[in-house]
Amino acid sequence: MTKPSKDTYSAALVVIGNEILSGRTQDTNTGWIATQTGAMGIILQEVRVVQDDEKEIISAVTDLRKKVDYVFTTGGIGPTHDDITAEAIAHAFGTELELNDEAFQVLIRHYGKEEEVTPPRKKMAMHTKGAILINNPVSGAPGFQMENVFVMAGVPRIMQSMFDDVKTKMKTGKPVMSNTIACKLLESQIAQPLSDIQDNYPTVAIGSYPHFRGGLLGLSLVLRSIEKDPLDRATAEVIAMITRLGGEPNALSIQSAAKGLATD
Amino acid sequence: MTKPSKDTYSAALVVIGNEILSGRTQDTNTGWIATQTGAMGIILQEVRVVQDDEKEIISAVTDLRKKVDYVFTTGGIGPTHDDITAEAIAHAFGTELELNDEAFQVLIRHYGKEEEVTPPRKKMAMHTKGAILINNPVSGAPGFQMENVFVMAGVPRIMQSMFDDVKTKMKTGKPVMSNTIACKLLESQIAQPLSDIQDNYPTVAIGSYPHFRGGLLGLSLVLRSIEKDPLDRATAEVIAMITRLGGEPNALSIQSAAKGLATD
Repeated sequence: MTKPSKDTYSAALVVIGNEILSGRTQDTNTGWIATQTGAMGIILQEVRVVQDDEKEIISAVTDLRKKVDYVFTTGGIGPTHDDITAEAIAHAFGTELELNDEAFQVLIRHYGKEEEVTPPRKKMAMHTKGAILINNPVSGAPGFQMENVFVMAGVPRIMQSMFDDVKTKMKTGKPVMSNTIACKLLESQIAQPLSDIQDNYPTVAIGSYPHFRGGLLGLSLVLRSIEKDPLDRATAEVIAMITRLGGEPNALSIQSAAKGLATD
Repeated sequence: MTKPSKDTYSAALVVIGNEILSGRTQDTNTGWIATQTGAMGIILQEVRVVQDDEKEIISAVTDLRKKVDYVFTTGGIGPTHDDITAEAIAHAFGTELELNDEAFQVLIRHYGKEEEVTPPRKKMAMHTKGAILINNPVSGAPGFQMENVFVMAGVPRIMQSMFDDVKTKMKTGKPVMSNTIACKLLESQIAQPLSDIQDNYPTVAIGSYPHFRGGLLGLSLVLRSIEKDPLDRATAEVIAMITRLGGEPNALSIQSAAKGLATD
């Protein structure tokens, strides 16, 4: 892995799939990728879910790869007519697909012999000119990297296996640490003191998330930072604030906290 | 509800929330909204998940509201410092927030008396000048509509209750019907014949979705259309194709099919 040249890197994800936009399939790749990249100091800044439409894929990838360090795509690299991601990426880079001999050899090994690599399967060895392959230990057909764009499968298990290889191709920064404190207060009760704490710790991102659980409105306060010291201090202040307001702080998940802070 | 002036309408969703992008929270609003709008003939064409950042919210909403008939936003309309959606929307429309008297009265009724509408709660009655309120039967504080943009809460239960009101504010088209056929074939086996069926039915969107279930790779073919007749005929052809290839078609979910087609 290359040495980081900055504290954190940025990333975006393009989810390609009518099945997500129709409500048929619940996307779970976003959360999984976000967790993986956060731990590597690569901050997921935006996700776009687009249709299986070349113009839309090109537009999303082109916009985002200027905006962030790394762009991931998931979906649309199989053998069927609705799998158009590889071609769209080629066109986004002003080039065409070509048979990638390395990918073709991978498919021959995966399926046992060359005759088994039928024309639809061979389509999965058609990659953008100049692409670097992404290993797919689950189902053979590789993903590929073009500059800062990583093109992966949509099926979570396959995407996750590809991501092991993608990880080795990115620079990494300082991991994002996150502390979550739940409490029994209302957002309107903590709004002002929480805002004051936020003002004092500009390098800590503090979020307030109400939720329904068992019919009751609950509240989680989440503090995220790549810097341990301000994160610890801001967390201590949030816990003290909740205690002061009688809200029974409950340290749900603490990745970084000075000793004795977590009340759990 | 206004009469439709076209067969289908288009929509996009902007999910506002660092908690989705950090992987902490799994977005479920996309699938829920997609299902609701599809049944109303409103096709969800794009989703963007953006950070709690004014520039990003403005950019996503401004782009998308030119592109589609209706834009929904979820998240960021509570009382805390990280809730910046209302202000971002005002700025996206070149205007400012103002105290919406109707929303203020709603909050007074919800909390019982005016003194209970503390400054953080009052923030939730600050709406874009000219906004139309969206009713919130769950937690009081209304969402709002500005032209073709509907601003809703992020908590699913609250968003869903707001959506009941949003539904009455949109034109509706022909509902999208969807048939799903599962089979035991590989994508590479059906790729060519499925592509041929797709070519014959341009008004039916046919998707092929492999998945892992219990360690086995399975395949679902999904046909979607607003036109019943071509959908029925394309579905029949897909079922016949699967049978011909020995793939045991299993009609998982059929919203429209001529009698005798579904083999269940």
